Amino acid sequence: MKYVYSFKEGNKEMKNLLGGKGANLAEMTHLNLPVPEGFIITTEACHNYYENEGKIKKEIVSEILDHIKQLEIETGKTFGSGSRPLLISVRSGAPFSMPGMMDTILNLGMNDDVAESLIRQTNNPRFVYDSYRRFIMMYADVVKGYERNVFESRLEEYKKAKNVTKDIELDANDLKQLTMDYLKIYETLNHNPFPADPIRQILEAVTAVFRSWNNDRAIYYRKINHIPDNLGTAVNIQTMVYGNIGNSSGTGVAFTRNPSTGEKKLYGEFLMNAQGEDVVAGIRTPEPIENLQVVNPTIYNQFLSYATILENHYRDMQDMEFTIEEGKLYMLQTRNGKRTPTASLKIAVDMVHEGLITKKDALLRIEPQDLQNVLHSRFKAHKETSVAKGLAASPGAAVGQIYFHAKDVIEAKKQHKDAILVRNETSPEDIEGMHHAKGILTIRGGMTSHAAVVARGMGVCCISGCESLKIDEVKKELYLPNHTILKEGDILSLDGTNGLVYTTALSMEENFENPNLLEFLSWTDEIESIQVKANADTKEDAIVAKKLGAQGIGLCRTEHMFFSPNRIFAFRKMILANSLQERVSYLNELLPIQREDFYQLFKTTAPNSVVIRYLDPPLHEFLPKEELEKQRLAASLNITMEDLQNRINNLKEINPMMGHRGCRLAITYKEIAIMQTKAIIEACILLLQENIQIIPEIMIPLTTDQKEFAYVKKIVDDTATKIMQEHQVTISYHVGTMIEVPRACALADQIASSAEFFSFGTNDLTQLTYGFSRDDSNKFLPEYLNKKIMLQDPFKSLDQEGVGSLMKVAVSLAKNIRPNISLGICGEHAGDPKSIKFCQEIGLDYVSCSPYRIPVAKLAAAQSALK
Amino acid sequence: MKYVYSFKEGNKEMKNLLGGKGANLAEMTHLNLPVPEGFIITTEACHNYYENEGKIKKEIVSEILDHIKQLEIETGKTFGSGSRPLLISVRSGAPFSMPGMMDTILNLGMNDDVAESLIRQTNNPRFVYDSYRRFIMMYADVVKGYERNVFESRLEEYKKAKNVTKDIELDANDLKQLTMDYLKIYETLNHNPFPADPIRQILEAVTAVFRSWNNDRAIYYRKINHIPDNLGTAVNIQTMVYGNIGNSSGTGVAFTRNPSTGEKKLYGEFLMNAQGEDVVAGIRTPEPIENLQVVNPTIYNQFLSYATILENHYRDMQDMEFTIEEGKLYMLQTRNGKRTPTASLKIAVDMVHEGLITKKDALLRIEPQDLQNVLHSRFKAHKETSVAKGLAASPGAAVGQIYFHAKDVIEAKKQHKDAILVRNETSPEDIEGMHHAKGILTIRGGMTSHAAVVARGMGVCCISGCESLKIDEVKKELYLPNHTILKEGDILSLDGTNGLVYTTALSMEENFENPNLLEFLSWTDEIESIQVKANADTKEDAIVAKKLGAQGIGLCRTEHMFFSPNRIFAFRKMILANSLQERVSYLNELLPIQREDFYQLFKTTAPNSVVIRYLDPPLHEFLPKEELEKQRLAASLNITMEDLQNRINNLKEINPMMGHRGCRLAITYKEIAIMQTKAIIEACILLLQENIQIIPEIMIPLTTDQKEFAYVKKIVDDTATKIMQEHQVTISYHVGTMIEVPRACALADQIASSAEFFSFGTNDLTQLTYGFSRDDSNKFLPEYLNKKIMLQDPFKSLDQEGVGSLMKVAVSLAKNIRPNISLGICGEHAGDPKSIKFCQEIGLDYVSCSPYRIPVAKLAAAQSALK
Repeated sequence: MKYVYSFKEGNKEMKNLLGGKGANLAEMTHLNLPVPEGFIITTEACHNYYENEGKIKKEIVSEILDHIKQLEIETGKTFGSGSRPLLISVRSGAPFSMPGMMDTILNLGMNDDVAESLIRQTNNPRFVYDSYRRFIMMYADVVKGYERNVFESRLEEYKKAKNVTKDIELDANDLKQLTMDYLKIYETLNHNPFPADPIRQILEAVTAVFRSWNNDRAIYYRKINHIPDNLGTAVNIQTMVYGNIGNSSGTGVAFTRNPSTGEKKLYGEFLMNAQGEDVVAGIRTPEPIENLQVVNPTIYNQFLSYATILENHYRDMQDMEFTIEEGKLYMLQTRNGKRTPTASLKIAVDMVHEGLITKKDALLRIEPQDLQNVLHSRFKAHKETSVAKGLAASPGAAVGQIYFHAKDVIEAKKQHKDAILVRNETSPEDIEGMHHAKGILTIRGGMTSHAAVVARGMGVCCISGCESLKIDEVKKELYLPNHTILKEGDILSLDGTNGLVYTTALSMEENFENPNLLEFLSWTDEIESIQVKANADTKEDAIVAKKLGAQGIGLCRTEHMFFSPNRIFAFRKMILANSLQERVSYLNELLPIQREDFYQLFKTTAPNSVVIRYLDPPLHEFLPKEELEKQRLAASLNITMEDLQNRINNLKEINPMMGHRGCRLAITYKEIAIMQTKAIIEACILLLQENIQIIPEIMIPLTTDQKEFAYVKKIVDDTATKIMQEHQVTISYHVGTMIEVPRACALADQIASSAEFFSFGTNDLTQLTYGFSRDDSNKFLPEYLNKKIMLQDPFKSLDQEGVGSLMKVAVSLAKNIRPNISLGICGEHAGDPKSIKFCQEIGLDYVSCSPYRIPVAKLAAAQSALK
Repeated sequence: MKYVYSFKEGNKEMKNLLGGKGANLAEMTHLNLPVPEGFIITTEACHNYYENEGKIKKEIVSEILDHIKQLEIETGKTFGSGSRPLLISVRSGAPFSMPGMMDTILNLGMNDDVAESLIRQTNNPRFVYDSYRRFIMMYADVVKGYERNVFESRLEEYKKAKNVTKDIELDANDLKQLTMDYLKIYETLNHNPFPADPIRQILEAVTAVFRSWNNDRAIYYRKINHIPDNLGTAVNIQTMVYGNIGNSSGTGVAFTRNPSTGEKKLYGEFLMNAQGEDVVAGIRTPEPIENLQVVNPTIYNQFLSYATILENHYRDMQDMEFTIEEGKLYMLQTRNGKRTPTASLKIAVDMVHEGLITKKDALLRIEPQDLQNVLHSRFKAHKETSVAKGLAASPGAAVGQIYFHAKDVIEAKKQHKDAILVRNETSPEDIEGMHHAKGILTIRGGMTSHAAVVARGMGVCCISGCESLKIDEVKKELYLPNHTILKEGDILSLDGTNGLVYTTALSMEENFENPNLLEFLSWTDEIESIQVKANADTKEDAIVAKKLGAQGIGLCRTEHMFFSPNRIFAFRKMILANSLQERVSYLNELLPIQREDFYQLFKTTAPNSVVIRYLDPPLHEFLPKEELEKQRLAASLNITMEDLQNRINNLKEINPMMGHRGCRLAITYKEIAIMQTKAIIEACILLLQENIQIIPEIMIPLTTDQKEFAYVKKIVDDTATKIMQEHQVTISYHVGTMIEVPRACALADQIASSAEFFSFGTNDLTQLTYGFSRDDSNKFLPEYLNKKIMLQDPFKSLDQEGVGSLMKVAVSLAKNIRPNISLGICGEHAGDPKSIKFCQEIGLDYVSCSPYRIPVAKLAAAQSALK
């Protein structure tokens, strides 16, 4: 078994073995780009390390040392003391890109003797001690786990004592002194001197990289990104090139296209006289890449040509790192660039237009979930004045309460608060909090700072480098330019598309006016796959759904039609009616409203069909809670407040989810089903007069067996027949049912003998199959996920094993009885890509999700069909 | 097809065709007992009537007329006018005995001419007009549906005018006048004269009997007795014999053994100079059958010998009707007598001792449900003085609120009130209310009155003939001998075993000191069948269970161990603990209590095993509601009332049934599972020191899959191992799980790979499979049953189709993985005979029910094995 590969021995297909970074370094080497020499310790070595109880076995050590020798030969330098010392970087590189998650050490191989040699060689003691002190700090942090802060405070103290503010203002002696101080700090913490032996340095560094595979941040990152825990990481060892030798040196990062908008234009930043981490960490605010054209046009043009070579070679947007060492350009990394969903979409569509990729490539390249984020919410038109402006680092809009620490965001989230994380700058330790924040605001850092990169990847709205603001993270205070002080819990609105910050809660709206999106979605229609319908309760929903390409409405929740203030009143009277006669009279008030709703909904959706679910939720959900509302209601019902309260109390239930709801309402109050049927059939008759034909699909909720279904169906049929006879017309309609209780799955054959279609209501089916109340499960579900008793939240992604097995039983029983039965799903899962794939596999005909999930669902369906 | 059978053509096996009454009349005819001649119109004729749109077809009419002719020949009498007129009775007779449900007409064939002839023949005009007026009233009631009241009021008026109180005080002229009045009343109501044609009379009467099969009372009776609706009824036509000719005539009913106690002694009542209905209807209070020995010893001895013949022939206790016509005894009916459960048991055991039936016969003869009623509750020893004494018509004890009308009882039941029905006398219209009453008290009527017979059959406690009380059913007042007036809603206690009435609420206790019961139950152990274990949470429960023959404890609900006031306090502190440390300290207070409980439970049950379910219900069920209790708790926890209320609010759930309960508690608070494991293992160690060995079966509730189960099992195993190591002993124990969520059924194979036993928790499984909250389903379940959308309450008898199919899946998956897995059921269904049969069929090893259900379960298990 070979555990170490030189860059020449690898290529981009070897990601699993060499990690993404290593494979790409190898690939760039083959493309004859200027890559500093180096080698890769494989992920197999990482596995071996874990199997070998956290030790690197001898054979691997000796392979590493052989490659170091090889490097010495290739570079003509010596590892350790010598006239031309070889310094190296040690970087992790997992098969999947995990930015900021794994640790990096630069300038390894340094010690007092090496420093002396380097000074002799470069005649640049400032550069040498700058490199030395950086190395000590990184080594102490990454290998030993000491707080960087200890070292940074020393640097700050020193600058204060010297009365300077920037690192660049320190001279060689200062940095030499700091280096000595760092060595002492290390010795104090470790009780041993800093290791001078470069071989010991490299082996400990490699061990640290392996170990870091299992640090908390890495584990969390893998968890939220669904990356398996058993891949392991490779280690990249590479000859150092120095961006910090002087003003003809520098370092930078750039994308071949704009990662925020997708615009086809080089996009990046650089810093002269700096090492790589300075750009990424956001400590100094770097210059835009365009300025390099002024600073060094030759290097700029050279870099531009490398960027083009790489993008054409990889057929994807590249994220590159480079270093300029005394006027010479080196490529240190390339990878497919992370980008915002909007950029992702634009790049995919542009590349199809450019002939670089096919439509199928484009469809397969975008994560369905990202399309959701393209529909980033935005603020409605408003006249508020912003209080500050930063960089528009990650698009979208967010309103929430201010929190100054990631852990406070996590707490706020648990209390169902929308949080805005406000920090000077973010670091990998903040990942979990960032994930839970609605928006992120940083005072420092550029478009490629940690905050910006991570927020874009997560699709979280972010404004970075908003330097007109100041914060005190300990006091938890944010100081505005207008001298206002905001505290934890105060409201902030962030507009990630223009970088503006507001102190009022702005109103938001969804945004689907993205021309790339509609073009992209139209390609999904060329792929034969499961149909995608929309859950829509209003004409407005139906318009959005149609625009986004929904193939009809798969769920209209009739109770939602009564949520508006002017309608809920009549609805409440109906609920609280004390006699059949009273209830019928209030239902008669509701009839014209509901008929008009259906009329509009059908008209918008025709010729596609609309599935109408009859009244479903427990009635008491609609009851008034405010005293004033109650008084109004009592007056209108002409009863006392006591009487009203009694009627309200009578509707209370211990377990409303399993209570008097669904078709149980139609059975106890058939007059409700009669009214709803009237409204539907009469709406169809009105449309018929306009020559619009639609076949309404009447859906009975919460059915437990055939008898129950047939009982309600008879009410529907009798009512429909009566109205059609009165109007002397014939309206086609179907009557089907939700399948959302386990019993209905078990008896699906019987039910299918009467029902013309099924729609799986997987929200309730999941609740009942697990016995998990969705409203209460936050008391224990997080523990299940933490303890890995459960790998995913079954309310987000369908439990294929349990709930799915009941669905399979139902599908097979139903098709046995009625081979052409129409089968769909209308739970929340209908918008989840993994669940859509499952639905396609078990033979459902359609999924029905909320209008803004349509793009996700359509793409997921197309991908599932393509794969 | 033959539609009419003479008595000679039938026998007792032909019940389905001839009805029970007809088949037995035929059988008695073959036994040469003195049965008046007659014939039977079959149930097939009834079906034909309903198929033929409510008309009796010609062929059947002509068969009936042929048999009338045959009767005329046999009796030498003429139907219609003639010198010796033939009068007949028309009685319904369904395949199952339905006492009081169908209607009877006596003296049919009567008209003015016939009356004249009869007077000439008998020289007894009083008898003739008594018969005539009875006939008119019965015909008007049964055939035309006119209120009997109209006629009875006329009778009352007449008596008042004549200043007499008893019917017997009226002479022939009076009765003639009344007859004329009745005919007029009929004509007024009907706008037509009373039909004089006997042929028309009989055909209309037969039609009325057929029609009465579907009257409300009959339908309700069939419903509560699970008698199919499609059997139909036969009609018995029989020559009249007259108990009302004079003082040497009479009529009576008797049982071969005491239907209340089972004592082997003729038991019954008779009235001289009366027709049958007078005895049954409770209008006059009859004399005990013993007195017949004085009135007419020959007849008495003759009757006694017939009774013995019939009992030996039928090998069961008989309920007989007889008439004495001018000194000659006629047998009018025999059937297997209805009896109290206590009598049923005693008769079965006695008949085994007498060699009349085998043990298997005895086991098959008793309805399992009846054994429940043998354990009739009784009053605890007390010193209350009774306010009245009536007949001990149906044993048991009842405490409840007074209601004067059956419909008020039904209303009270809906409001979960215990009702005592108090009436002058009951009638078939009251059946439904009687069924819902806890007890029945009638002012009039004997031991065989309608109230007494029906109450005994239903197992409802009843005191009849309590004549020292008076009531006003309109004013709804009950007048006690001590001049107290009780009103609707006041409390009454009835002791059905001695007939005593109390106006205070006496305390009740269960009664299982029935020697017949224990002997009878011991016979079930001779039949190989599914095992019966008990649900028992205390030593006291365990003792009862053992006494009644439970084969171990199948469910110990550990949370029930903390319900007593002195324990709930420590338990509440544990629930409300705010930190792990706090919770552990309160758990340490609970540990010795729980250990002692287990010690006692194990000791009582050894060598049988005990299944211990870990803490299951949502914690908030245990929280205090009283202000004082809350204050005490806050003080003890050393927190403010606000803080306490906050903690309490935090535990509230929207759908607690599907909330933070079951093994979810062990996963979030593993310290609870640790404490419970400690208590179990330490109790076993204590018992080991007394040389008592028991294998505790630790049961994890509400499991949804294998991972979850394994997580909790590991807590149990780790804790047990630690304790065993500390004590240097080895204790055997098993860890298994409840199967009570649908997902666990679907994944039973995975779970069985870790779990050593399963117990189906069919209460929760039913809730989740249907999505029916048991606490709320009373809002719609009654409608489902009324509308026959559902044929039984799935919480009472297992839903074999739905829930049962999930159980079958689970059993088959589990046995596949672990062929010798122990499988049980511990839901409420475990005490339901039909459900037990199902459990046996699908291969469960045991059922576990509440201690007082053990007899029912054991008998049901034995019967299921025998059948």
